[in-house]
Amino acid sequence: MTKTYTAAMIVIGNEILSGRTQDKNINYIALKLGEVGVRFAEVRIIPDIAAKIVETVRAMKAEYDYVFTSGGIGPTHDDITAENVAAACGAVLVQNPQAYDILLAHYGAEELTDARLKMAQIPVGASLIENPVSAAPGFCIDNVYVMAGVPRIMQAMMDHVAPTLAGGAVVQSRTVFTKLYESVIAPALGEIQDDFPDLDIGSYPHFQNGQLGVSVVLRGVDEPMLDKAAQAVEAALEALKPQE
Amino acid sequence: MTKTYTAAMIVIGNEILSGRTQDKNINYIALKLGEVGVRFAEVRIIPDIAAKIVETVRAMKAEYDYVFTSGGIGPTHDDITAENVAAACGAVLVQNPQAYDILLAHYGAEELTDARLKMAQIPVGASLIENPVSAAPGFCIDNVYVMAGVPRIMQAMMDHVAPTLAGGAVVQSRTVFTKLYESVIAPALGEIQDDFPDLDIGSYPHFQNGQLGVSVVLRGVDEPMLDKAAQAVEAALEALKPQE
Repeated sequence: MTKTYTAAMIVIGNEILSGRTQDKNINYIALKLGEVGVRFAEVRIIPDIAAKIVETVRAMKAEYDYVFTSGGIGPTHDDITAENVAAACGAVLVQNPQAYDILLAHYGAEELTDARLKMAQIPVGASLIENPVSAAPGFCIDNVYVMAGVPRIMQAMMDHVAPTLAGGAVVQSRTVFTKLYESVIAPALGEIQDDFPDLDIGSYPHFQNGQLGVSVVLRGVDEPMLDKAAQAVEAALEALKPQE
Repeated sequence: MTKTYTAAMIVIGNEILSGRTQDKNINYIALKLGEVGVRFAEVRIIPDIAAKIVETVRAMKAEYDYVFTSGGIGPTHDDITAENVAAACGAVLVQNPQAYDILLAHYGAEELTDARLKMAQIPVGASLIENPVSAAPGFCIDNVYVMAGVPRIMQAMMDHVAPTLAGGAVVQSRTVFTKLYESVIAPALGEIQDDFPDLDIGSYPHFQNGQLGVSVVLRGVDEPMLDKAAQAVEAALEALKPQE
């Protein structure tokens, strides 16, 4: 039995909770973790409140193998992620020489203001996460990966981080689409789930061109088993179709 | 001092965590809560695991005035929200006569199968939330509002619920856009935040046509104060503009 690696994400963002902005980072992290075989187990979206950040980072880092944060690592007064992740990890912030060099190379000595230098304040013991978009790096301390909130920057950072994560078997999926109602297919699906306890079988209703349809999604690491279960779903749905 | 009402949302959804689906419900809830003056304080996205649902509902209902859940109230085997919210509230599921009548009227006696009747299983003591799209109701027990995951249905349910919530003063916002870098405006913004401690001033960088821009968002309940602070931000940004 190989170990299952788990991950959680903490979105630090008043702008998501106020409704001003629609999050675009959760889905990106979800897909990247899937690619490397890490099970994405929880997301928490919390406001820019120091105590809440500390409490949430502590809880998530104890419960999961990896924790990703997005948001709050810029130069302004409302960017309070670094200091509170540091506090959650029992570390202090110091000016990181490598981060300083990166910012110096990017801005030049004259433009390296105090506000910009704030972005070189990194917890002791952390390693940096490269930011190819706007220079100011993220960082990793313990099992916590601290990344930017701007989607383009967060995605570039996650692209660097993902290949470095230890993961288990990659979860594969099969999707069977039907226009039958969920309530019609429910008994058959339940039986197939019982026959394949190692797979996760989910059914997701959605509207398409004003018509309700259902995607039956089968997920698991064993591809022959997935194919067998998907065939069982297809056969069951075929049998349930109204006769012409 | 009027009471501040707070809310949390629990998204119950393997399909969000697997990356198959991008959540569309969080933003809708955020905007609706803003309209009625309820502070949206936390979101948790969790998998369809019974113990996790129970634990999360218990934690959120104790911490916040209102809790909204989305997902997992359909007729299939993977719809386990109702029974676990019931467990979290110390209630049992029973066939709700009003829900039964709604389903009977919608499907007719012959088509009211066991799978469909599962959607009439509602915790004792709960009140129903109308579903104008596909009949099967959500419900409210204690301070927990259990709604569908399909965005069109969830939105219709939330439209019914929102006007019934007690809320406080509605938070208003002002947004000032600039092409100056965050690191350039940071010191001035910090000072203005200090001058207006009752407002939340946030700065949100984003890319637009390949150019980095920043939205400075001021939020608070006092409109004259907001206008005054927004004017202070505008004046500060104007003073920071490079001279032609």
